[in-house]
Amino acid sequence: MLFCYSVAQRLIAVKYYYSNSHLQNTKATRVIFANVLNIFKAKSAMPDTKKIDHNAEHLEQISILLEESLLNETRVYIANLYPAEIANVLESLPVEERGKVWSLISPNIMGTILVGMREEVAKGLIDLTSKDYLIEAAGRLESDDLIDFLHAIPEPLVAKILTKLGVEQGARLESALSYQDDTAGGLMTLESLTMREDVTLGAAWRYLRRRGEIPPTTESLIVINKQNIFQGVLPLSILLTKPLQSLVSEWMDVSVKAIPHNMPAEEVAMLFEQRDLLSAPVISENGRLLGKITIDDVVDVIRDQADHSLMSMAGLDEEQDMFAPVVESAKRRSVWLGINLLTAFLASWVIGLFEATLDQIVALAVLMPIVASMGGIAGSQTLTLIIRGLALRQIGDSNAIRLIIQELWVGMLNGAVWAVIVAIVAGIWFQNAGIGLLLGCALVINLLCAALAGASIPLILQKIGVDPALAGSVLLTTVTDVVGFMAFLGLATFFLL
Amino acid sequence: MLFCYSVAQRLIAVKYYYSNSHLQNTKATRVIFANVLNIFKAKSAMPDTKKIDHNAEHLEQISILLEESLLNETRVYIANLYPAEIANVLESLPVEERGKVWSLISPNIMGTILVGMREEVAKGLIDLTSKDYLIEAAGRLESDDLIDFLHAIPEPLVAKILTKLGVEQGARLESALSYQDDTAGGLMTLESLTMREDVTLGAAWRYLRRRGEIPPTTESLIVINKQNIFQGVLPLSILLTKPLQSLVSEWMDVSVKAIPHNMPAEEVAMLFEQRDLLSAPVISENGRLLGKITIDDVVDVIRDQADHSLMSMAGLDEEQDMFAPVVESAKRRSVWLGINLLTAFLASWVIGLFEATLDQIVALAVLMPIVASMGGIAGSQTLTLIIRGLALRQIGDSNAIRLIIQELWVGMLNGAVWAVIVAIVAGIWFQNAGIGLLLGCALVINLLCAALAGASIPLILQKIGVDPALAGSVLLTTVTDVVGFMAFLGLATFFLL
Repeated sequence: MLFCYSVAQRLIAVKYYYSNSHLQNTKATRVIFANVLNIFKAKSAMPDTKKIDHNAEHLEQISILLEESLLNETRVYIANLYPAEIANVLESLPVEERGKVWSLISPNIMGTILVGMREEVAKGLIDLTSKDYLIEAAGRLESDDLIDFLHAIPEPLVAKILTKLGVEQGARLESALSYQDDTAGGLMTLESLTMREDVTLGAAWRYLRRRGEIPPTTESLIVINKQNIFQGVLPLSILLTKPLQSLVSEWMDVSVKAIPHNMPAEEVAMLFEQRDLLSAPVISENGRLLGKITIDDVVDVIRDQADHSLMSMAGLDEEQDMFAPVVESAKRRSVWLGINLLTAFLASWVIGLFEATLDQIVALAVLMPIVASMGGIAGSQTLTLIIRGLALRQIGDSNAIRLIIQELWVGMLNGAVWAVIVAIVAGIWFQNAGIGLLLGCALVINLLCAALAGASIPLILQKIGVDPALAGSVLLTTVTDVVGFMAFLGLATFFLL
Repeated sequence: MLFCYSVAQRLIAVKYYYSNSHLQNTKATRVIFANVLNIFKAKSAMPDTKKIDHNAEHLEQISILLEESLLNETRVYIANLYPAEIANVLESLPVEERGKVWSLISPNIMGTILVGMREEVAKGLIDLTSKDYLIEAAGRLESDDLIDFLHAIPEPLVAKILTKLGVEQGARLESALSYQDDTAGGLMTLESLTMREDVTLGAAWRYLRRRGEIPPTTESLIVINKQNIFQGVLPLSILLTKPLQSLVSEWMDVSVKAIPHNMPAEEVAMLFEQRDLLSAPVISENGRLLGKITIDDVVDVIRDQADHSLMSMAGLDEEQDMFAPVVESAKRRSVWLGINLLTAFLASWVIGLFEATLDQIVALAVLMPIVASMGGIAGSQTLTLIIRGLALRQIGDSNAIRLIIQELWVGMLNGAVWAVIVAIVAGIWFQNAGIGLLLGCALVINLLCAALAGASIPLILQKIGVDPALAGSVLLTTVTDVVGFMAFLGLATFFLL
């Protein structure tokens, strides 16, 4: 509103100048008009800096519109958003509101929105959508998105869509569907702008000109030979600056390595990150060009990977809906709670072994959680450090032992420091130096075990092919609880009874 | 090796055919030669699919070379790596080996390696490097990297480098240094290829041709007017495909919004992600072009952000060195342990309130950790869900209450289910139905509190400007421990004594 006002104001000013006789100098007026135009353009190109948190803003606005049941206004608001922004808003809405908003969305962006969402949310929306809409949505997708889309929709529809695409494209897609989701093959798009190595830059340029449309985010062409074998990459900047009579093969960048189709997606992400790539060709075992991977898909992989580490450590699945039905959510989380209950009962059983001791010295019961809790914290620090190192491929056979030793020393030092403090506090509290001393010793023992377990559990899980982020923390807590209670109560039984 | 062998074999085959009289047909020979050449090219462009985990491989190889003290071989190996790959290897090496490898690196890539590293590792290496090398390293950096570099090196060197760059560039950089690290201004590079809106595509093309070199990752030019006000973006693909006599202003993409320099880096990352941008112009309050942000820097932001959430939740700093000196590491971690010790003592104090009860029924001491531990687990699930939602800007005032209610229901349901199981097991174990019943009730109470605390703590922390990932888990554990022990022992005191 502020902006409209300011432009209107200036237009009035221009009118005023224009009507003012002694200012009817065409040059001055033109300057003023140009100024107004510039302000208009600059303003329209600059987002409002006060509302720069666009996702939060969209969510609030749409919630308000929905609350007032202003469906038409909601439709207009949504029409101005990017598909990924709509996906984000939909994920943030409770199920009922989500359905309302979904019904306002045009089928031709439905596909893009669905593939950019958490799986569970997408599945829920697909169930709400008519078959015809889904088929129409599929038609608007690029091959990599289409493949994800086909994975998400019900089986019978897949066949229908493949038939509708025609024999050739359908066959290509069907072969693309065979690549695993988490490999380079699963990430690539089949559409890639290719050029033969044996043509001149001029011919390449004429070909592009005849083609007319190039996706605006294209920064290079992939160069192949007659046999469709990958040769190198030709940046568009080369086409623009180098002599037109020279050959593509003279200028193409052969230092760009193609990515084999079976490379894991995480590894692909790391290649893009470390080599600052915008796109990369994907090839088969025999060097034939299969497609290309673009940075936008890689960014999604990086985000998903990070999400996965964070969520798995709490036993959650990153593809799940924040607003899944309560019973559904409770069921999923209860698995994790159940596993942890086993751990808790194990700890209780350990404590139970020392029932006689506890019966005599009740102070032990008061202090024993300290040992277990400190061990848990120290261990989870080590565990997190190692899990991150593994994810970044910074830990291997060559430095694993060094890291474990390093962590043991850190555990020993912190154990010693906090043991003294804990011993003094507990000793004064219960007026019993012996209990304080034993508490300190148990703490040192548990922090050492926590360091050893925190470092070695993820390394072992990785070796045997289990996700360390998922299983690591439960196993760690088991160790620190059992060792913590055992050490403290065991020492007390031995020395104090 | 395999590859060399296979090419050699084919060359021998070619020789054989060549010397064989009845095959002295030039055409056939040429085909064979072309084949050999193709295989050569395809092979050299295709990484060995067996060793696709390149980072782990580099780390192992370099560790082996260092162990054998083969410094020259190490130097050769490193020379073939990308700077970011070297940075990764350096971060993975223990301090002593890291210094050895660093001494083998050429000063002209030192800058790029240093800015791509965790701060602490970079600081350590900077201390090992001579001033002259650092000045030389600075000279090779683009402005955004240079700014990061200047932030990292000792004060006196900064002035020296700025002087060396000359008055104009030095002044520009000095103003760029004033932008905050975590804003669009801090992310942008000052070098951007710009074009005036009022020239023809032909003139633009001739200008690029005269310029000769365009960075190969350039996909578009930024269009400005005479006053350096941002107007739009011109994809290189337009230059290649549209009529040369038309004006830049006719074809430029005005839908691209410029980013205000004070936009937070996380928000910038989300814009890039959601709009699939490769680069974006950065402007001042009055619309003047300041520079541009490229996707490679955004990828780093996304990685750092994810890293930060994961590490903070364990009270760790993502910029720290995995191989920091033991005393240093222990000191840092001890802060977190100290805070948790306060929590643990608080829990102990709560237990201490019920010493008389515990003295009479020792079974309570055995079972009480179950309530606290289950609450901690359930709470951390809710906490993680909310922290992630906040990071993705999916939680706002409009849905916060709904989420808290949802989580309370999940807590209630899981509490009820596990309460029954826990009550039965405990009742049988101690042959006392009363204890089992109370344990179950305490579990329900604690899971409800865990849900409430897990959902509201991060929301409150966010409101008051404290990082939820950092402070959330400690506060949560305090709640679940205190409530857990209080509920179980309190109920027991009331009903069983």
